[in-house]
Amino acid sequence: MARQERALRTRRLILEAAASVFDEFGYERATIGEVVARAGVTRGAVYFHFASKRELAQGVIEGQFEAEAVPERSCKLQEFVDTGMVVTHLVPIDPLVSAAVRLSVDQGADKQMGIDAAPGWISRLERLLVDAGERGELLPHVVPADTAGLMTASWVGVQLQSQRFTGRADLAVRVSTLYRHLMPSVAVPGVLACLDLAPDRGARVYAEMTAAREAAAGEVAGAAGPEGADADAG
Amino acid sequence: MARQERALRTRRLILEAAASVFDEFGYERATIGEVVARAGVTRGAVYFHFASKRELAQGVIEGQFEAEAVPERSCKLQEFVDTGMVVTHLVPIDPLVSAAVRLSVDQGADKQMGIDAAPGWISRLERLLVDAGERGELLPHVVPADTAGLMTASWVGVQLQSQRFTGRADLAVRVSTLYRHLMPSVAVPGVLACLDLAPDRGARVYAEMTAAREAAAGEVAGAAGPEGADADAG
Repeated sequence: MARQERALRTRRLILEAAASVFDEFGYERATIGEVVARAGVTRGAVYFHFASKRELAQGVIEGQFEAEAVPERSCKLQEFVDTGMVVTHLVPIDPLVSAAVRLSVDQGADKQMGIDAAPGWISRLERLLVDAGERGELLPHVVPADTAGLMTASWVGVQLQSQRFTGRADLAVRVSTLYRHLMPSVAVPGVLACLDLAPDRGARVYAEMTAAREAAAGEVAGAAGPEGADADAG
Repeated sequence: MARQERALRTRRLILEAAASVFDEFGYERATIGEVVARAGVTRGAVYFHFASKRELAQGVIEGQFEAEAVPERSCKLQEFVDTGMVVTHLVPIDPLVSAAVRLSVDQGADKQMGIDAAPGWISRLERLLVDAGERGELLPHVVPADTAGLMTASWVGVQLQSQRFTGRADLAVRVSTLYRHLMPSVAVPGVLACLDLAPDRGARVYAEMTAAREAAAGEVAGAAGPEGADADAG
């Protein structure tokens, strides 16, 4: 394994350990010592990649955004919905996403500024709404920045409520209820009628993304010649 | 002052001190010692009213619900909107409301169950939606429990976002945006057209409530005879 690849793997290992620590303890009570213990690396390795607890938290939040976007759709409002539905699907299964949500909601008094995933989500959603508007999918009164901010805020509130009441067991159903309430105020009727807002939408789109990723990996392995193809088959 | 009245005043003093401590430190870092110091009462007085930190937190959350309901309206969906708008108006000015919101959002790992204002708000809103349904104000697909839960969750998320981004300076505007997005999926068109969803709605309804309370106090003082009337004028 090349040195750079090894460094990236270590960085990912540290981020995942940090995510599990932040998710369990919150920002204030999290310690770098605990991250070191869980990552199974040296304290020096952690400090090589992240100078402070704050940088670790920032890394967790940014790590979420390295994840690829949902597949493009001809209907941009479906992409808008899919973006929220896939994150909803990932919260209970991806420690980085779960920790990013928790860090963004934490209200610790000592908390440093800038540890918040919301601004990134708001601009991602705002861009999709602007695209949707250019294609005539939006009702005329919609202000993309306002609707993107509201969607993000409401999603966070719904996530908190689901976590508190059912340990997230009904998260997908609650998020579907959120979209069913919001989209009629956003989409023109013809687009609204075509939107898939079902609770299992996130799981289906994520399966599609996984299949596409595996197909792409297979192609790369195939292009590498018989050796690569063998490795893929074995 | 009668003994019972004095006890109620002390209880209120303790709750307000507890609210300011919870609001500043969160549940986990709050101490009864700090509540004692801020209330200016003895430790024994605090323990006479509240056996533990958990009971203090519960008291803060219940204290919020002792507040009177918004004025009755012939349109129950306007009462539904007013309920959320008045709380929105109170969050920045009433420490009990602010602390109840913070306690409900706190995610501390050690946090005991039952410290959550949301269930009380959800049932209050659900009752108003059921009344609205009986008067034909709701679209046919609305499920009162689902919409009440979503409204409460979204409000909490919007409050967090406003606090994070602007220190709550734009809270009323953001909550108005929330209602403008949700109500078209809840109200029949004839009712929707009559709803007042303006950002200053909460302040106006609260002024109406204050005036009604002062008028009632004046009447009581008047009924108590010249002495009472003098006291009121002085």
